Amino acid sequence: MALRDQGDVICEGSPVLLYLDERRKYLTKVEKDRKIHTHKGYIDMSALIGLEYGSKVKSNIGVDFVALQPTLWDYVLKVVRKTQVIYPKDMAIMVFKLGLKPGMKVVEAGTGSGALTCALAFFVKPGIVYSYEINPSFQEVAKRNLERAGLLDYVVLKLKDITQGIDEENVDAVVLDMATPWLVVPHAYKALKRGGHFARLSPTINQVEKTVLELRKHDFVDIKVYELLLREIKVEEGAVRPEMFMVGHTGYITFARKSL
Amino acid sequence: MALRDQGDVICEGSPVLLYLDERRKYLTKVEKDRKIHTHKGYIDMSALIGLEYGSKVKSNIGVDFVALQPTLWDYVLKVVRKTQVIYPKDMAIMVFKLGLKPGMKVVEAGTGSGALTCALAFFVKPGIVYSYEINPSFQEVAKRNLERAGLLDYVVLKLKDITQGIDEENVDAVVLDMATPWLVVPHAYKALKRGGHFARLSPTINQVEKTVLELRKHDFVDIKVYELLLREIKVEEGAVRPEMFMVGHTGYITFARKSL
Amino acid sequence: MALRDQGDVICEGSPVLLYLDERRKYLTKVEKDRKIHTHKGYIDMSALIGLEYGSKVKSNIGVDFVALQPTLWDYVLKVVRKTQVIYPKDMAIMVFKLGLKPGMKVVEAGTGSGALTCALAFFVKPGIVYSYEINPSFQEVAKRNLERAGLLDYVVLKLKDITQGIDEENVDAVVLDMATPWLVVPHAYKALKRGGHFARLSPTINQVEKTVLELRKHDFVDIKVYELLLREIKVEEGAVRPEMFMVGHTGYITFARKSL
Amino acid sequence: MALRDQGDVICEGSPVLLYLDERRKYLTKVEKDRKIHTHKGYIDMSALIGLEYGSKVKSNIGVDFVALQPTLWDYVLKVVRKTQVIYPKDMAIMVFKLGLKPGMKVVEAGTGSGALTCALAFFVKPGIVYSYEINPSFQEVAKRNLERAGLLDYVVLKLKDITQGIDEENVDAVVLDMATPWLVVPHAYKALKRGGHFARLSPTINQVEKTVLELRKHDFVDIKVYELLLREIKVEEGAVRPEMFMVGHTGYITFARKSL
Repeated sequence: MALRDQGDVICEGSPVLLYLDERRKYLTKVEKDRKIHTHKGYIDMSALIGLEYGSKVKSNIGVDFVALQPTLWDYVLKVVRKTQVIYPKDMAIMVFKLGLKPGMKVVEAGTGSGALTCALAFFVKPGIVYSYEINPSFQEVAKRNLERAGLLDYVVLKLKDITQGIDEENVDAVVLDMATPWLVVPHAYKALKRGGHFARLSPTINQVEKTVLELRKHDFVDIKVYELLLREIKVEEGAVRPEMFMVGHTGYITFARKSL
Repeated sequence: MALRDQGDVICEGSPVLLYLDERRKYLTKVEKDRKIHTHKGYIDMSALIGLEYGSKVKSNIGVDFVALQPTLWDYVLKVVRKTQVIYPKDMAIMVFKLGLKPGMKVVEAGTGSGALTCALAFFVKPGIVYSYEINPSFQEVAKRNLERAGLLDYVVLKLKDITQGIDEENVDAVVLDMATPWLVVPHAYKALKRGGHFARLSPTINQVEKTVLELRKHDFVDIKVYELLLREIKVEEGAVRPEMFMVGHTGYITFARKSL
Repeated sequence: MALRDQGDVICEGSPVLLYLDERRKYLTKVEKDRKIHTHKGYIDMSALIGLEYGSKVKSNIGVDFVALQPTLWDYVLKVVRKTQVIYPKDMAIMVFKLGLKPGMKVVEAGTGSGALTCALAFFVKPGIVYSYEINPSFQEVAKRNLERAGLLDYVVLKLKDITQGIDEENVDAVVLDMATPWLVVPHAYKALKRGGHFARLSPTINQVEKTVLELRKHDFVDIKVYELLLREIKVEEGAVRPEMFMVGHTGYITFARKSL
Repeated sequence: MALRDQGDVICEGSPVLLYLDERRKYLTKVEKDRKIHTHKGYIDMSALIGLEYGSKVKSNIGVDFVALQPTLWDYVLKVVRKTQVIYPKDMAIMVFKLGLKPGMKVVEAGTGSGALTCALAFFVKPGIVYSYEINPSFQEVAKRNLERAGLLDYVVLKLKDITQGIDEENVDAVVLDMATPWLVVPHAYKALKRGGHFARLSPTINQVEKTVLELRKHDFVDIKVYELLLREIKVEEGAVRPEMFMVGHTGYITFARKSL
């Protein structure tokens, strides 16, 4: 199910994104005899079974919803979160810069709510993401989020402190979203295959500085630090403008590659 | 070879990125008896054969270069360009938002220099990208860029005007980078499978408005327009700051999904 | 009083900004026998009389407040607002680009809540701002805000539709913040002295386009359109970063100068 | 002359901005029997005498120029520079946040090329700017720039190291653009009147952190750090978009007010 199975017909157990408008989208799983309640009435799940994704369904009060097949984007935005979650724009540039592809072996820390883990697993499957976390309750949440997205088979969840060392060897990439990344730099260097990628999301500029200085001490090259700002544009006929409010800062992303 | 073959040992014919520093990187192919000339001396290609990617080599004047395995990012940045090329940050969010994955069928127009085509093919292979272009000389350049990246097998290059119609059916995504996208909206609607994705990069806000209004006339939902700004951060110990100059605008990206 | 009188000692009737922290600042006027109530207790106004600005006072529960002399910035941020108010960053660049200085004659429309009117009057006094507004209730609010800032003497509030014409002649600048600025362009051209400045804040890009095209039809030169983004930086020791949320868009500012 | 005298008729000795287009503007002084040479022919200065500002003049090859009266903005952009110069957007927010007005007493360091000094003097005259600089050749350049703008009478240029102390007392504002502002914080506290303003432009985030921590140690309140990004919008009919290239970073501006 979930992201693994992209059949075009909705079955019992299929994931579905019920889309009402830009602001109201409901990610759920189809179960017979279940109703999903919204501000615009409820939708009887049985009515969805047998429809093609992309079809419209009406709530009991006659409002149209579109039954979309959830994408990776929908899953990471709708992750059940116990922690600060990485924004899709930042995940996207990571995936692209690292050149993630099927079969790769990636190490991640910390797992957190598993949103980034979903993205990594989506792009490397049938490869594996080894995901380190020290907080068992975060790991539990991440597990459920990965299950919902159908990606748990491609993730090894480890309850371990990555600052103590990385068990894996010859990995394609090490991806960090944690408070003391500079402590992991030597371990990452050891775990990475030659030319392998290091990536790190950091909210503060001080962590960026520390991490970059540590990367330079080891034999990392092609060190780049980026910040992405995303503006959403509001389009009304004759009245186009950026949205009044935006997320002004998510984090800085540091990239590097291991040389010998 | 190229992006298809990620062996760790450099052979004759292997692609290689010779990295000197942040600004000087040379993307080339290893050929015996060939030298690559740089501002810091030349490198004898024969010396690379048999090394692991990530190894260092010296130029004839003793300067160290790192022989990295080129990634998708390197290929799209080093594309031979005859046209304005989409920036990696914009490609990245497209790939991620569309949820591209192996086996998908994507329609693209125009091919241009083929940088975006590379990115699409990289993520959907062994799926296929059908790429429309009306300028034969652009298509020729794109072909060479796709060959170099080892991705030509996953692309059907079409010398055809997409505003006249799309031949393919039931496609997962239609991705446009051309001057009159609104003329393609009805064709895209027809070609897309239900729930399929539309994406469009546009330099001007006027094209955004026209495209969004046209998408609304047809049965597209989940219409979003984003603009991404990328800042590069310069890290010196005790002197961290954003780079003085930046690319201030590349384009707006419009996303939508087909409903019924 | 108010912005006119910058004596260093607080008297009865003096304006004061009671500063608790970055988020809690109270703009008020000192009156004997009045208390100002805050989340951190109340402050007895009588206690302020005779102190120098910049002094600390304690609330009844012993919390320190600083009694600052309000600046223009404080007044425009604390304006009683019935309308969308221009942000200080946008006012600032207007004042600077127009080169406003004492004695100038400026025409403004619409008055709105009078925040921009305050800024214009502050910099041109003893010159005059002629401010057009068609909504009497907005004008009433603006009058009170100008009074509070001590700037009403330098403003002529006019209940008139500026799209019907400008009464003044030989003015140094015309500053617009209204929905149909292009209708005012011909009137502005007539009212301005040679070389005089036109400025216009517009929330949408469509209004920018219309206004610039109209300015070009008339004999305006040095036409520039700017957008300013302001990020606030949060400084904690070892943890410096931009604020998570920011105002993503306020408006575009169009500048032009009349030639003959 | 210069910014002091804003008569509407051009005389011998008058400053003039010869405007050809957005990119080509020539700031000069009118002298009989002098020609100004441009890419579009030369202009005979004698022909300007007696014209009103805003009039058009033709070059010897028949190209129209507009003879504009230079504004503060023009002067600061056209400053003869020996040093990195503060951008107008940053000057503008400083002037506005500090609430500069006629009669104020301001301390500045370092003088540099005098661009910021021009702006400060323009808004406080007939008040005085006390400007500290340790490099005599910078001071010489600044003197010429202030003379050209007609503002030298309102500036006391001091060849002195401000980190050793500030001679002035009871000043309205201390404005710093120098490498070690934290060394000046105690002197600034002493020199400022109660409630007086501190402002500091800094290119790096590390300097921001040091300065803010130092301000907190002393009794400064209302500490704010801003960064301004300016985008220029390019307007062609039906093709409106931000400029492709922009200045991505100029500096962070730190503001604070002295309490007791």
